Amino acid sequence: MKFWSNKAKSIEPYTYGEQPKDKKYIKLNTNENPYPPSPKAVKIIRELDENIYKLYSDPTCSEIKEAISKVYNVDKEQVFVGNGSDEVIAFSYQAFFDKGDKIIYPDITYSFYPVYSKMYDTTEIINPLNEDFTMNLKGFNQEGKGIILTNPNAPTGIALTLEEIESVIQNNLDKLIIVDEAYVDFGAESAVKLINKYNNLLVIQTFSKSRSFASLRIGFAIGNKDLIKALHIIKDSYNPYTLDTIGIKAGATAMLDVEYFDKTRKAIMSTRDRIKKELEKLGFEGTNSKSNFLFMKHNSLDGEYIFKKLKENGVLVRYFNKPRINNYLRISIGTDEEMNEMIKILKEKILK
Amino acid sequence: MKFWSNKAKSIEPYTYGEQPKDKKYIKLNTNENPYPPSPKAVKIIRELDENIYKLYSDPTCSEIKEAISKVYNVDKEQVFVGNGSDEVIAFSYQAFFDKGDKIIYPDITYSFYPVYSKMYDTTEIINPLNEDFTMNLKGFNQEGKGIILTNPNAPTGIALTLEEIESVIQNNLDKLIIVDEAYVDFGAESAVKLINKYNNLLVIQTFSKSRSFASLRIGFAIGNKDLIKALHIIKDSYNPYTLDTIGIKAGATAMLDVEYFDKTRKAIMSTRDRIKKELEKLGFEGTNSKSNFLFMKHNSLDGEYIFKKLKENGVLVRYFNKPRINNYLRISIGTDEEMNEMIKILKEKILK
Repeated sequence: MKFWSNKAKSIEPYTYGEQPKDKKYIKLNTNENPYPPSPKAVKIIRELDENIYKLYSDPTCSEIKEAISKVYNVDKEQVFVGNGSDEVIAFSYQAFFDKGDKIIYPDITYSFYPVYSKMYDTTEIINPLNEDFTMNLKGFNQEGKGIILTNPNAPTGIALTLEEIESVIQNNLDKLIIVDEAYVDFGAESAVKLINKYNNLLVIQTFSKSRSFASLRIGFAIGNKDLIKALHIIKDSYNPYTLDTIGIKAGATAMLDVEYFDKTRKAIMSTRDRIKKELEKLGFEGTNSKSNFLFMKHNSLDGEYIFKKLKENGVLVRYFNKPRINNYLRISIGTDEEMNEMIKILKEKILK
Repeated sequence: MKFWSNKAKSIEPYTYGEQPKDKKYIKLNTNENPYPPSPKAVKIIRELDENIYKLYSDPTCSEIKEAISKVYNVDKEQVFVGNGSDEVIAFSYQAFFDKGDKIIYPDITYSFYPVYSKMYDTTEIINPLNEDFTMNLKGFNQEGKGIILTNPNAPTGIALTLEEIESVIQNNLDKLIIVDEAYVDFGAESAVKLINKYNNLLVIQTFSKSRSFASLRIGFAIGNKDLIKALHIIKDSYNPYTLDTIGIKAGATAMLDVEYFDKTRKAIMSTRDRIKKELEKLGFEGTNSKSNFLFMKHNSLDGEYIFKKLKENGVLVRYFNKPRINNYLRISIGTDEEMNEMIKILKEKILK
C-alpha cells in the first residue's frame, strides 16, 4: 500500500450482489429484469455498421437524450445520461456537494450512498425509517445541503406518494433533493412531473431494471437545466465519453419502445403480487413492495438460514446482515417459472 | 448555479475534438483508427444472446482481463480495466494521490492531465519539453508524488526509448510513475515489460486507437498487484460496473486477434510515413511521430489558417491554440484514400 492514497487506504467499497459461477442459479439477487430488452433495441445492436465502432461515442449522448426527453415530455437540456445510475449519483455528489456538506438519507436504503458520502467527503446524516420501514418525512427537515429519497426505497420496496415527495421538497427548498427512482416503473409515481416547479429537484433513473439493460450501463437524470449543466461539467472533467455508442443507440430505441416496456413491467408486477400471496401462505410476511423485488421475513425460520438453504438449492436471493433487516430476504422478481421453482423449493426442501 | 458545488463552479472541463454534424467530413481530428475493429469482435457483438443484456456486466471484468494478461504475458491480478483510459487515469489520481500532492508532467502533453489535477486537487508541476519537443528527462528529478510520462507523447508523437523510461523510474523510485501508452502500438516500445521490476510503475493503454474500439470505451492498466488493487477499491466505491458486457466480450476478442491488430497498425504506420514525406514536399515540417497522427507546421502559412481552410474543404484536423504549438496541426492518420484526398485539397485549394 506504499503508493496508495489516503482514500484508497480508508474507504470501504460497495458490496455488490454475488455472481457465483460454480453452477447455474435461478438469479433473484440483483434485481435484474427476467425478460430480455426490447427486440427493437436488440435488432439495432445486431445491425450496427462495423465502421461505427472505430469512432468515439457522442459525448453529448444526443440520440438517447432526445428519446428520454420525448418519453418524459421534458426538454433535452433537462436530461443527463451516464454510465449507469451509480455514475449519475456519483457525479451528483461531485456537482452539488462540497466537503463536509450534510446529506440526509434513511438508515435503510441503497447501501451505495454511505460509500459516496465517504468517497466525496460529505457528512452522512441518518434519518431512520419508522418502525414499519416507512419514511420519516419530517425527519428530513433538519440542517443539511442535500436529501436522497429512494422511491420506491430499497431494499424495502415501499413507495412514497407524489404528495409526500412534494412535501419534502417544499419543506427543504434550500437543499438539493435527489429522488432515486431506480425501481419507480414497478408501481410508484415518478417525480419527473415536478421538475419544472422546483429548481432543487433531481430525478435519477436507470435502464438496468425496467428496461432490461443492466449489461449496457445506462442511467439518467432529469432536472432543471442549471442542475443538468453542473453534471455535464463534472462528466467532462472526468471522462467525456462515459456512454458507449451501443448504449446510446440501443438505449434510445428501448426508451422509445413504450409498448414493450409496459408489457414487461406489468408482467413483473403481476408475478410479484401473485408470489407475495404464495409466500404469505408459507408463513412469510413483508412490505408492500412497489418494486421488482419482495422484502420479506419468515415467521419462524431465520432469514440467513433460508438464504443459505435457497442457495444450496440453486436459488440466489439477497440477504443483508445489517441491523433491523437481518431477518429479511430481498427476492428479485423473475419469470413465473423461476418464481414457481423457488416456491417449490421452499415448500419441498426448506419449510418441510 | 445556486446548488452547484465549488468544484462545478470552478473547474474548466476537458475540451474534446469537435464532432460537427453539418456535413460529412474526412475526420482526422480525434486520432481514431480508420479501420473497423477485428471482424471476430464484430461477430461476437452481432451474435450475443439477447438474454445476456438483462444481466449486470461482470464487475471483475474477468474475460477481458484474461485476454489482456495472455497477450501481455502478465498475471490477471496485474490488470485493471475501465471505461476508457480517461477513466483509468481518473481512478489513478484518486487511488494514488492525495490533496496537494505534486504530479509532474510536461507543458505539452495530453491536455486532460491538468483537468484531473484540478478535479482531484493535486498540484501540477510542469516540466517543460525541450525546445525540439523532446522530453527533459532530468526535469522529472524533483520533489513530487507522481510523474506522468505519455509515450509516445501527444500531440507531438515523439517516443521515449525503454531505456529512457527506465532511467526516469530508477531516478524516482519513491514516486508513482504513470506511463500513458495510448499510442504505443504505432511504433514505440511498451513499458509493460518493466512492471515486475518496479513496484512504482503503472502502464495505461486503451482500445480506442490501435484496436479500433473508441466507441466501446475500454482502457486498461498493467502494474503490480498492489497498485491494481487500489484501482479496484476506487472503482468499487464509484461504479462497480463501469465496463459493459459488450465491451468485455468484444474487447477480449479484439485483444486476442493479434493478427488483425498487427495488420492494421502496420498499415497506419506505413500510411503515416508516406504522408509525412508528401507533406514535407509541400513545405511542412514536423516531429518524428511514432503515433497514429502527425504533428506538423508549414514553412509559410499559419497553422490556424490551414486548419480553417481544411475544414472549409471537408477535412477536420486538430489545432491547439496554445503557447509553443499554436502553429502546428495534429493530423490523425486515416485510410490511404482519405490522406490522399487531404494532400490533394492542400495542393489544389490551400497551398496553390
